Amino acid sequence: MLSKAKVKYLSSLKSKKFRQKYNNFVAEGDKIAIEILKNAQNSTAVFTTEIEAIYGLSEWIENNTSLLQPFQAITTEVDKVTLQKISSLQTPNQALIVLKTFDYSPDKAVIQSDFTLLLDEIQDPGNLGTILRIADWFGIKNIICSKDCADLYNPKTIQATMGAFLRVKTFRVDLTEFCATFKELPVYGAVLGGSNLFQTQLEKKALIVIGNEGKGISESMLQLLTHRIEIPANGQAESLNAAIATGIICAAFRNL
Amino acid sequence: MLSKAKVKYLSSLKSKKFRQKYNNFVAEGDKIAIEILKNAQNSTAVFTTEIEAIYGLSEWIENNTSLLQPFQAITTEVDKVTLQKISSLQTPNQALIVLKTFDYSPDKAVIQSDFTLLLDEIQDPGNLGTILRIADWFGIKNIICSKDCADLYNPKTIQATMGAFLRVKTFRVDLTEFCATFKELPVYGAVLGGSNLFQTQLEKKALIVIGNEGKGISESMLQLLTHRIEIPANGQAESLNAAIATGIICAAFRNL
Repeated sequence: MLSKAKVKYLSSLKSKKFRQKYNNFVAEGDKIAIEILKNAQNSTAVFTTEIEAIYGLSEWIENNTSLLQPFQAITTEVDKVTLQKISSLQTPNQALIVLKTFDYSPDKAVIQSDFTLLLDEIQDPGNLGTILRIADWFGIKNIICSKDCADLYNPKTIQATMGAFLRVKTFRVDLTEFCATFKELPVYGAVLGGSNLFQTQLEKKALIVIGNEGKGISESMLQLLTHRIEIPANGQAESLNAAIATGIICAAFRNL
Repeated sequence: MLSKAKVKYLSSLKSKKFRQKYNNFVAEGDKIAIEILKNAQNSTAVFTTEIEAIYGLSEWIENNTSLLQPFQAITTEVDKVTLQKISSLQTPNQALIVLKTFDYSPDKAVIQSDFTLLLDEIQDPGNLGTILRIADWFGIKNIICSKDCADLYNPKTIQATMGAFLRVKTFRVDLTEFCATFKELPVYGAVLGGSNLFQTQLEKKALIVIGNEGKGISESMLQLLTHRIEIPANGQAESLNAAIATGIICAAFRNL
Protein backbone atom coordinates (compact mmCIF):
# COMPACT_ATOMS: atom_id res chain seq x y z
CA MET A 1 0.00 0.00 0.00
CA LEU A 2 1.22 3.47 -0.84
CA SER A 3 0.58 6.32 1.56
CA LYS A 4 -1.90 8.98 0.48
CA ALA A 5 0.93 11.49 0.28
CA LYS A 6 2.91 9.20 -2.05
CA VAL A 7 -0.08 8.65 -4.34
CA LYS A 8 -0.60 12.40 -4.41
CA TYR A 9 3.06 13.04 -5.27
CA LEU A 10 3.08 10.42 -8.06
CA SER A 11 -0.17 11.75 -9.51
CA SER A 12 1.22 15.27 -9.40
CA LEU A 13 3.91 14.23 -11.92
CA LYS A 14 1.19 14.18 -14.58
CA SER A 15 1.49 17.96 -14.53
CA LYS A 16 4.44 19.89 -15.91
CA LYS A 17 4.54 22.23 -12.92
CA PHE A 18 5.27 19.38 -10.51
CA ARG A 19 7.66 17.59 -12.88
CA GLN A 20 9.70 20.80 -12.92
CA LYS A 21 9.40 21.24 -9.16
CA TYR A 22 10.68 17.75 -8.38
CA ASN A 23 12.85 17.17 -11.49
CA ASN A 24 11.12 13.84 -11.91
CA PHE A 25 9.00 12.23 -14.56
CA VAL A 26 7.18 8.97 -15.12
CA ALA A 27 7.51 6.25 -17.76
CA GLU A 28 4.95 3.47 -17.88
CA GLY A 29 4.20 0.04 -19.19
CA ASP A 30 5.92 -3.32 -19.27
CA LYS A 31 7.91 -2.74 -22.45
CA ILE A 32 9.29 0.72 -21.64
CA ALA A 33 9.96 -0.29 -18.01
CA ILE A 34 12.07 -3.26 -19.12
CA GLU A 35 13.96 -1.06 -21.59
CA ILE A 36 14.71 1.42 -18.80
CA LEU A 37 15.98 -1.34 -16.49
CA LYS A 38 18.24 -2.74 -19.21
CA ASN A 39 19.46 0.72 -20.15
CA ALA A 40 20.34 1.53 -16.54
CA GLN A 41 22.53 -1.60 -16.40
CA ASN A 42 24.12 -1.12 -19.78
CA SER A 43 27.60 0.36 -19.53
CA THR A 44 27.50 1.38 -23.21
CA ALA A 45 24.15 3.19 -22.92
CA VAL A 46 23.98 6.51 -24.78
CA PHE A 47 23.46 8.32 -21.49
CA THR A 48 22.73 7.37 -17.90
CA THR A 49 19.16 7.28 -16.65
CA GLU A 50 18.64 7.75 -12.95
CA ILE A 51 15.83 5.64 -11.60
CA GLU A 52 14.19 7.04 -8.49
CA ALA A 53 11.46 4.49 -7.87
CA ILE A 54 9.81 1.47 -9.46
CA TYR A 55 6.19 0.42 -8.96
CA GLY A 56 4.89 -2.86 -10.32
CA LEU A 57 2.15 -5.43 -9.95
CA SER A 58 3.28 -8.54 -8.03
CA GLU A 59 3.30 -10.72 -11.17
CA TRP A 60 5.39 -8.20 -13.06
CA ILE A 61 7.92 -8.02 -10.25
CA GLU A 62 8.13 -11.83 -10.15
CA ASN A 63 8.59 -12.05 -13.90
CA ASN A 64 11.48 -9.59 -13.84
CA THR A 65 13.37 -10.51 -10.67
CA SER A 66 16.83 -10.59 -12.21
CA LEU A 67 16.41 -7.25 -14.00
CA LEU A 68 15.03 -5.73 -10.79
CA GLN A 69 17.80 -7.20 -8.59
CA PRO A 70 19.94 -4.02 -8.38
CA PHE A 71 16.83 -1.94 -7.64
CA GLN A 72 15.28 -3.95 -4.81
CA ALA A 73 15.51 -1.06 -2.39
CA ILE A 74 13.48 1.23 -4.59
CA THR A 75 10.96 -1.29 -5.97
CA THR A 76 7.46 -1.29 -4.51
CA GLU A 77 4.68 -3.73 -5.21
CA VAL A 78 1.32 -2.08 -5.91
CA ASP A 79 -2.13 -3.48 -6.59
CA LYS A 80 -4.18 -2.69 -9.68
CA VAL A 81 -6.30 -0.07 -7.95
CA THR A 82 -3.23 1.85 -6.80
CA LEU A 83 -1.54 1.58 -10.19
CA GLN A 84 -4.71 3.01 -11.76
CA LYS A 85 -4.51 5.99 -9.39
CA ILE A 86 -0.94 6.92 -10.23
CA SER A 87 -1.06 6.02 -13.93
CA SER A 88 -1.63 8.37 -16.88
CA LEU A 89 -2.73 5.50 -19.10
CA GLN A 90 -6.37 4.62 -19.62
CA THR A 91 -5.40 1.00 -19.11
CA PRO A 92 -2.37 0.90 -16.78
CA ASN A 93 0.15 -1.67 -17.88
CA GLN A 94 1.89 -3.54 -15.03
CA ALA A 95 4.69 -1.13 -14.14
CA LEU A 96 5.53 2.52 -13.62
CA ILE A 97 8.99 3.99 -13.16
CA VAL A 98 9.91 7.39 -11.76
CA LEU A 99 13.04 8.86 -13.33
CA LYS A 100 15.16 11.94 -12.77
CA THR A 101 14.87 14.44 -15.61
CA PHE A 102 17.95 14.40 -17.80
CA ASP A 103 21.01 16.53 -17.36
CA TYR A 104 23.13 16.16 -20.48
CA SER A 105 24.67 18.54 -22.96
CA PRO A 106 24.54 18.73 -26.79
CA ASP A 107 27.28 16.82 -28.62
CA LYS A 108 28.80 19.62 -30.63
CA ALA A 109 30.99 17.29 -32.67
CA VAL A 110 28.01 15.06 -33.52
CA ILE A 111 25.93 18.06 -34.57
CA GLN A 112 28.75 19.23 -36.83
CA SER A 113 29.11 15.83 -38.48
CA ASP A 114 25.50 14.73 -39.06
CA PHE A 115 22.04 16.23 -39.46
CA THR A 116 20.04 17.44 -36.50
CA LEU A 117 16.33 18.19 -36.12
CA LEU A 118 15.22 21.61 -34.88
CA LEU A 119 11.60 21.53 -33.71
CA ASP A 120 9.95 24.92 -34.08
CA GLU A 121 7.02 24.84 -31.64
CA ILE A 122 5.85 21.25 -32.07
CA GLN A 123 2.78 21.38 -29.88
CA ASP A 124 1.40 17.88 -29.67
CA PRO A 125 3.18 15.59 -27.16
CA GLY A 126 2.29 12.57 -29.34
CA ASN A 127 4.00 14.20 -32.32
CA LEU A 128 7.07 15.07 -30.24
CA GLY A 129 7.34 11.49 -28.99
CA THR A 130 6.87 10.08 -32.48
CA ILE A 131 9.61 12.39 -33.78
CA LEU A 132 11.99 11.02 -31.12
CA ARG A 133 11.10 7.52 -32.28
CA ILE A 134 11.87 8.49 -35.88
CA ALA A 135 15.21 10.02 -34.80
CA ASP A 136 16.02 6.82 -32.92
CA TRP A 137 15.25 4.73 -36.04
CA PHE A 138 17.49 6.83 -38.26
CA GLY A 139 20.26 7.17 -35.67
CA ILE A 140 19.87 10.91 -35.14
CA LYS A 141 21.44 11.74 -31.81
CA ASN A 142 20.13 15.19 -30.91
CA ILE A 143 16.77 16.93 -31.14
CA ILE A 144 16.72 20.65 -30.51
CA CYS A 145 13.33 21.97 -29.33
CA SER A 146 12.24 25.58 -29.25
CA LYS A 147 11.20 26.76 -25.81
CA ASP A 148 7.52 26.59 -26.72
CA CYS A 149 7.60 22.94 -27.83
CA ALA A 150 5.59 20.27 -26.02
CA ASP A 151 7.28 18.89 -22.90
CA LEU A 152 9.58 15.89 -23.38
CA TYR A 153 8.52 14.62 -19.96
CA ASN A 154 4.78 14.73 -20.66
CA PRO A 155 3.50 11.14 -20.19
CA LYS A 156 2.05 11.20 -23.73
CA THR A 157 5.43 12.19 -25.18
CA ILE A 158 7.27 9.48 -23.27
CA GLN A 159 4.68 6.89 -24.29
CA ALA A 160 4.93 7.81 -27.99
CA THR A 161 8.75 7.57 -27.98
CA MET A 162 8.52 3.80 -27.36
CA GLY A 163 11.79 4.08 -25.43
CA ALA A 164 13.60 6.42 -27.83
CA PHE A 165 13.98 8.99 -25.01
CA LEU A 166 16.69 6.65 -23.65
CA ARG A 167 18.84 7.11 -26.75
CA VAL A 168 18.02 10.48 -28.30
CA LYS A 169 19.01 13.64 -26.45
CA THR A 170 16.45 16.42 -26.44
CA PHE A 171 17.19 20.03 -25.59
CA ARG A 172 15.10 23.16 -25.12
CA VAL A 173 16.85 26.25 -26.40
CA ASP A 174 16.33 29.46 -28.31
CA LEU A 175 16.50 28.14 -31.89
CA THR A 176 17.86 31.32 -33.45
CA GLU A 177 20.71 31.41 -30.91
CA PHE A 178 21.36 27.73 -31.56
CA CYS A 179 21.65 28.34 -35.32
CA ALA A 180 24.02 31.22 -34.67
CA THR A 181 26.45 28.84 -32.94
CA PHE A 182 26.47 26.51 -35.96
CA LYS A 183 26.84 29.08 -38.71
CA GLU A 184 28.82 26.69 -40.89
CA LEU A 185 25.83 24.32 -41.24
CA PRO A 186 23.12 24.76 -43.88
CA VAL A 187 19.59 25.16 -42.50
CA TYR A 188 16.83 23.23 -44.31
CA GLY A 189 13.11 23.73 -43.91
CA ALA A 190 10.03 22.39 -45.69
CA VAL A 191 7.95 25.22 -47.15
CA LEU A 192 5.41 25.47 -49.97
CA GLY A 193 7.23 26.16 -53.20
CA GLY A 194 10.53 24.75 -51.95
CA SER A 195 12.62 22.53 -54.18
CA ASN A 196 11.54 18.90 -54.56
CA LEU A 197 13.05 16.95 -51.66
CA PHE A 198 13.64 13.94 -53.89
CA GLN A 199 15.34 15.85 -56.68
CA THR A 200 17.59 17.97 -54.51
CA GLN A 201 21.18 17.17 -53.65
CA LEU A 202 20.99 17.19 -49.85
CA GLU A 203 23.96 18.20 -47.72
CA LYS A 204 24.21 15.57 -45.03
CA LYS A 205 25.71 17.83 -42.38
CA ALA A 206 22.80 20.11 -41.74
CA LEU A 207 20.17 21.53 -39.44
CA ILE A 208 16.58 20.69 -40.42
CA VAL A 209 13.76 22.86 -39.11
CA ILE A 210 10.37 21.19 -38.54
CA GLY A 211 7.51 23.67 -38.22
CA ASN A 212 4.48 23.85 -35.95
CA GLU A 213 1.48 21.60 -36.75
CA GLY A 214 -0.81 24.47 -37.74
CA LYS A 215 1.38 27.46 -38.51
CA GLY A 216 4.45 25.80 -40.02
CA ILE A 217 7.89 27.36 -39.58
CA SER A 218 7.94 30.64 -37.62
CA GLU A 219 8.87 33.95 -39.22
CA SER A 220 12.19 34.21 -37.34
CA MET A 221 13.25 30.71 -38.37
CA LEU A 222 12.14 31.19 -42.00
CA GLN A 223 14.70 33.97 -42.20
CA LEU A 224 17.46 31.58 -41.17
CA LEU A 225 16.70 28.92 -43.80
CA THR A 226 19.46 28.50 -46.34
CA HIS A 227 17.63 25.71 -48.27
CA ARG A 228 13.88 25.55 -48.86
CA ILE A 229 12.62 22.08 -49.65
CA GLU A 230 9.19 20.58 -50.27
CA ILE A 231 7.73 17.09 -50.09
CA PRO A 232 6.04 16.94 -53.49
CA ALA A 233 2.27 16.48 -53.32
CA ASN A 234 0.21 14.64 -55.91
CA GLY A 235 -3.18 14.98 -54.24
CA GLN A 236 -5.32 17.70 -52.72
CA ALA A 237 -4.35 17.56 -49.05
CA GLU A 238 -3.34 20.90 -47.61
CA SER A 239 -0.56 19.55 -45.46
CA LEU A 240 1.04 16.48 -43.95
CA ASN A 241 1.11 15.72 -40.23
CA ALA A 242 4.33 17.18 -38.76
CA ALA A 243 5.67 13.79 -37.64
CA ILE A 244 4.93 12.20 -41.04
CA ALA A 245 6.78 15.03 -42.78
CA THR A 246 9.69 14.54 -40.38
CA GLY A 247 9.81 10.81 -41.15
CA ILE A 248 9.91 11.42 -44.90
CA ILE A 249 12.55 14.15 -44.61
CA CYS A 250 14.77 12.03 -42.35
CA ALA A 251 14.45 9.08 -44.72
CA ALA A 252 15.52 11.29 -47.62
CA PHE A 253 18.50 12.76 -45.74
CA ARG A 254 19.71 9.33 -44.63
CA ASN A 255 19.14 7.47 -47.86
CA LEU A 256 19.22 9.67 -50.95
CA MET B 1 -32.37 23.96 -28.03
CA LEU B 2 -32.14 20.31 -29.02
CA SER B 3 -34.57 17.81 -27.58
CA LYS B 4 -33.20 15.28 -25.12
CA ALA B 5 -33.84 12.53 -27.64
CA LYS B 6 -31.81 14.37 -30.31
CA VAL B 7 -28.89 14.92 -27.94
CA LYS B 8 -29.02 11.24 -27.05
CA TYR B 9 -29.06 10.20 -30.72
CA LEU B 10 -26.14 12.50 -31.61
CA SER B 11 -24.11 11.31 -28.62
CA SER B 12 -24.83 7.71 -29.57
CA LEU B 13 -22.90 8.23 -32.82
CA LYS B 14 -19.68 8.23 -30.77
CA SER B 15 -20.15 4.46 -30.62
CA LYS B 16 -19.62 2.16 -33.59
CA LYS B 17 -22.74 0.15 -32.78
CA PHE B 18 -24.99 3.17 -33.29
CA ARG B 19 -23.09 4.47 -36.31
CA GLN B 20 -23.78 1.13 -37.95
CA LYS B 21 -27.39 1.11 -36.82
CA TYR B 22 -28.15 4.56 -38.26
CA ASN B 23 -25.57 4.59 -41.09
CA ASN B 24 -24.49 8.01 -39.87
CA PHE B 25 -21.30 9.51 -38.54
CA VAL B 26 -20.07 12.83 -37.24
CA ALA B 27 -17.34 15.22 -38.43
CA GLU B 28 -16.43 18.17 -36.26
CA GLY B 29 -14.69 21.49 -36.17
CA ASP B 30 -14.71 24.67 -38.22
CA LYS B 31 -12.12 23.59 -40.79
CA ILE B 32 -13.51 20.12 -41.58
CA ALA B 33 -17.10 21.46 -41.57
CA ILE B 34 -16.23 24.09 -44.16
CA GLU B 35 -14.45 21.48 -46.29
CA ILE B 36 -17.54 19.27 -46.16
CA LEU B 37 -19.82 22.14 -47.19
CA LYS B 38 -17.56 23.03 -50.11
CA ASN B 39 -17.21 19.41 -51.12
CA ALA B 40 -20.99 18.91 -51.12
CA GLN B 41 -21.35 21.85 -53.54
CA ASN B 42 -18.45 20.87 -55.76
CA SER B 43 -19.60 19.15 -58.93
CA THR B 44 -16.10 17.75 -59.51
CA ALA B 45 -15.79 16.25 -56.00
CA VAL B 46 -14.24 12.79 -55.87
CA PHE B 47 -17.48 11.40 -54.46
CA THR B 48 -20.72 12.77 -53.09
CA THR B 49 -21.11 13.31 -49.38
CA GLU B 50 -24.63 13.28 -48.04
CA ILE B 51 -25.14 15.76 -45.25
CA GLU B 52 -27.91 14.84 -42.86
CA ALA B 53 -27.68 17.67 -40.35
CA ILE B 54 -25.51 20.64 -39.40
CA TYR B 55 -25.11 22.04 -35.90
CA GLY B 56 -23.22 25.25 -35.27
CA LEU B 57 -22.74 28.08 -32.80
CA SER B 58 -24.59 31.26 -33.83
CA GLU B 59 -21.35 33.08 -34.75
CA TRP B 60 -20.18 30.21 -36.91
CA ILE B 61 -23.52 30.11 -38.76
CA GLU B 62 -23.35 33.89 -39.33
CA ASN B 63 -19.77 33.65 -40.61
CA ASN B 64 -20.70 30.98 -43.14
CA THR B 65 -24.12 32.08 -44.41
CA SER B 66 -23.36 31.69 -48.09
CA LEU B 67 -21.83 28.23 -47.70
CA LEU B 68 -24.77 27.19 -45.53
CA GLN B 69 -27.39 28.66 -47.88
CA PRO B 70 -28.34 25.35 -49.58
CA PHE B 71 -28.55 23.61 -46.20
CA GLN B 72 -30.78 26.05 -44.29
CA ALA B 73 -33.45 23.42 -43.69
CA ILE B 74 -31.03 21.08 -41.96
CA THR B 75 -28.93 23.65 -40.07
CA THR B 76 -29.57 24.11 -36.35
CA GLU B 77 -28.05 26.69 -34.06
CA VAL B 78 -26.77 25.27 -30.78
CA ASP B 79 -25.22 26.88 -27.73
CA LYS B 80 -21.82 25.92 -26.32
CA VAL B 81 -23.24 23.70 -23.61
CA THR B 82 -25.22 21.66 -26.12
CA LEU B 83 -22.28 21.42 -28.51
CA GLN B 84 -20.17 20.11 -25.64
CA LYS B 85 -22.77 17.41 -24.99
CA ILE B 86 -22.84 16.08 -28.54
CA SER B 87 -19.14 16.59 -29.31
CA SER B 88 -16.36 13.99 -29.13
CA LEU B 89 -13.71 16.69 -28.85
CA GLN B 90 -12.30 17.82 -25.52
CA THR B 91 -12.71 21.38 -26.74
CA PRO B 92 -15.65 21.47 -29.18
CA ASN B 93 -14.93 23.69 -32.15
CA GLN B 94 -17.92 25.69 -33.43
CA ALA B 95 -19.61 23.16 -35.71
CA LEU B 96 -20.60 19.51 -36.02
CA ILE B 97 -21.96 17.82 -39.12
CA VAL B 98 -23.81 14.51 -39.35
CA LEU B 99 -23.11 12.62 -42.58
CA LYS B 100 -24.39 9.45 -44.17
CA THR B 101 -21.78 6.70 -44.22
CA PHE B 102 -20.34 6.23 -47.69
CA ASP B 103 -21.63 3.92 -50.32
CA TYR B 104 -19.04 3.77 -53.09
CA SER B 105 -17.19 1.01 -54.86
CA PRO B 106 -13.47 0.43 -55.52
CA ASP B 107 -12.14 1.88 -58.78
CA LYS B 108 -10.76 -1.24 -60.39
CA ALA B 109 -9.09 0.65 -63.22
CA VAL B 110 -7.38 3.03 -60.75
CA ILE B 111 -6.17 0.12 -58.64
CA GLN B 112 -4.71 -1.52 -61.74
CA SER B 113 -2.89 1.63 -62.80
CA ASP B 114 -1.43 2.97 -59.52
CA PHE B 115 -0.39 1.74 -56.11
CA THR B 116 -2.93 1.03 -53.40
CA LEU B 117 -2.53 0.65 -49.64
CA LEU B 118 -3.78 -2.50 -47.91
CA LEU B 119 -4.09 -1.99 -44.15
CA ASP B 120 -3.66 -5.24 -42.27
CA GLU B 121 -5.36 -4.64 -38.92
CA ILE B 122 -4.35 -1.04 -38.26
CA GLN B 123 -5.80 -0.66 -34.79
CA ASP B 124 -5.40 2.94 -33.79
CA PRO B 125 -8.05 5.33 -35.22
CA GLY B 126 -5.48 8.15 -35.15
CA ASN B 127 -3.10 6.07 -37.27
CA LEU B 128 -5.89 5.17 -39.72
CA GLY B 129 -6.87 8.83 -40.10
CA THR B 130 -3.24 9.90 -40.53
CA ILE B 131 -2.78 7.23 -43.22
CA LEU B 132 -5.78 8.66 -45.11
CA ARG B 133 -4.16 12.09 -44.88
CA ILE B 134 -0.91 10.66 -46.29
CA ALA B 135 -2.84 8.98 -49.14
CA ASP B 136 -4.58 12.28 -49.86
CA TRP B 137 -1.21 14.07 -50.02
CA PHE B 138 0.27 11.57 -52.44
CA GLY B 139 -2.90 11.29 -54.54
CA ILE B 140 -3.63 7.67 -53.63
CA LYS B 141 -7.30 7.08 -54.37
CA ASN B 142 -8.15 3.87 -52.52
CA ILE B 143 -7.35 2.39 -49.13
CA ILE B 144 -8.27 -1.20 -48.54
CA CYS B 145 -8.76 -2.10 -44.86
CA SER B 146 -8.91 -5.57 -43.39
CA LYS B 147 -12.12 -6.27 -41.53
CA ASP B 148 -10.39 -5.89 -38.14
CA CYS B 149 -9.02 -2.40 -38.87
CA ALA B 150 -10.10 0.61 -36.81
CA ASP B 151 -13.38 2.17 -37.94
CA LEU B 152 -13.18 4.89 -40.60
CA TYR B 153 -16.15 6.61 -38.97
CA ASN B 154 -14.65 6.73 -35.47
CA PRO B 155 -14.51 10.45 -34.51
CA LYS B 156 -10.75 10.13 -33.86
CA THR B 157 -10.18 8.71 -37.34
CA ILE B 158 -12.22 11.44 -39.02
CA GLN B 159 -10.42 14.13 -37.00
CA ALA B 160 -6.98 12.80 -37.93
CA THR B 161 -7.81 12.71 -41.65
CA MET B 162 -8.03 16.53 -41.71
CA GLY B 163 -10.66 16.18 -44.44
CA ALA B 164 -8.94 13.43 -46.46
CA PHE B 165 -11.98 11.17 -45.96
CA LEU B 166 -13.71 13.40 -48.54
CA ARG B 167 -11.23 12.42 -51.26
CA VAL B 168 -9.82 8.99 -50.43
CA LYS B 169 -12.13 5.98 -50.65
CA THR B 170 -11.79 3.44 -47.86
CA PHE B 171 -13.10 -0.10 -48.01
CA ARG B 172 -13.35 -2.97 -45.54
CA VAL B 173 -12.77 -6.31 -47.18
CA ASP B 174 -11.08 -9.66 -46.75
CA LEU B 175 -7.52 -8.75 -47.81
CA THR B 176 -6.60 -12.20 -49.13
CA GLU B 177 -9.69 -12.25 -51.33
CA PHE B 178 -8.90 -8.74 -52.51
CA CYS B 179 -5.38 -9.76 -53.53
CA ALA B 180 -6.78 -12.75 -55.38
CA THR B 181 -8.80 -10.42 -57.64
CA PHE B 182 -5.67 -8.44 -58.55
CA LYS B 183 -3.31 -11.33 -59.22
CA GLU B 184 -1.42 -9.36 -61.88
CA LEU B 185 -0.22 -6.80 -59.30
CA PRO B 186 2.93 -7.28 -57.19
CA VAL B 187 2.34 -7.23 -53.42
CA TYR B 188 4.89 -5.28 -51.34
CA GLY B 189 5.29 -5.41 -47.59
CA ALA B 190 7.82 -4.00 -45.13
CA VAL B 191 9.46 -6.77 -43.12
CA LEU B 192 12.73 -7.11 -41.23
CA GLY B 193 15.40 -8.30 -43.61
CA GLY B 194 13.57 -7.06 -46.70
CA SER B 195 15.47 -5.27 -49.47
CA ASN B 196 16.40 -1.64 -48.87
CA LEU B 197 13.40 0.50 -49.93
CA PHE B 198 15.70 3.18 -51.30
CA GLN B 199 17.87 0.84 -53.34
CA THR B 200 15.07 -1.22 -54.84
CA GLN B 201 13.49 -0.65 -58.22
CA LEU B 202 9.84 -0.23 -57.23
CA GLU B 203 7.03 -1.27 -59.54
CA LYS B 204 4.58 1.59 -59.48
CA LYS B 205 1.47 -0.48 -60.13
CA ALA B 206 1.31 -2.41 -56.92
CA LEU B 207 -0.44 -3.35 -53.72
CA ILE B 208 1.38 -2.32 -50.54
CA VAL B 209 0.55 -4.08 -47.27
CA ILE B 210 0.91 -2.07 -44.05
CA GLY B 211 1.02 -4.24 -40.92
CA ASN B 212 -0.51 -3.92 -37.48
CA GLU B 213 1.13 -1.52 -34.99
CA GLY B 214 2.35 -4.27 -32.67
CA LYS B 215 2.38 -7.49 -34.64
CA GLY B 216 3.27 -6.29 -38.11
CA ILE B 217 1.93 -8.08 -41.19
CA SER B 218 -0.27 -11.11 -40.46
CA GLU B 219 0.78 -14.65 -41.37
CA SER B 220 -1.80 -14.98 -44.14
CA MET B 221 -0.73 -11.71 -45.78
CA LEU B 222 3.00 -12.48 -45.42
CA GLN B 223 2.38 -15.48 -47.64
CA LEU B 224 0.95 -13.26 -50.37
CA LEU B 225 3.92 -10.84 -50.50
CA THR B 226 5.81 -10.94 -53.76
CA HIS B 227 8.33 -8.23 -52.71
CA ARG B 228 9.76 -7.82 -49.21
CA ILE B 229 11.11 -4.35 -48.51
CA GLU B 230 12.61 -2.63 -45.50
CA ILE B 231 13.06 0.98 -44.42
CA PRO B 232 16.75 0.90 -43.52
CA ALA B 233 17.48 1.70 -39.86
CA ASN B 234 20.61 3.42 -38.61
CA GLY B 235 19.72 3.55 -34.93
CA GLN B 236 18.50 1.21 -32.24
CA ALA B 237 14.72 1.66 -32.40
CA GLU B 238 12.81 -1.58 -32.71
CA SER B 239 10.22 -0.24 -35.09
CA LEU B 240 8.66 2.82 -36.66
CA ASN B 241 5.10 3.97 -36.01
CA ALA B 242 2.83 2.40 -38.65
CA ALA B 243 1.73 5.76 -40.07
CA ILE B 244 5.33 7.03 -40.27
CA ALA B 245 6.37 3.88 -42.13
CA THR B 246 3.42 4.37 -44.49
CA GLY B 247 4.46 7.96 -45.17
CA ILE B 248 8.02 6.96 -46.01
CA ILE B 249 6.93 4.06 -48.23
CA CYS B 250 4.41 6.20 -50.13
CA ALA B 251 7.04 8.91 -50.64
CA ALA B 252 9.41 6.31 -52.06
CA PHE B 253 6.79 4.81 -54.40
CA ARG B 254 5.74 8.22 -55.69
CA ASN B 255 9.16 9.76 -56.05
CA LEU B 256 11.94 7.24 -56.52
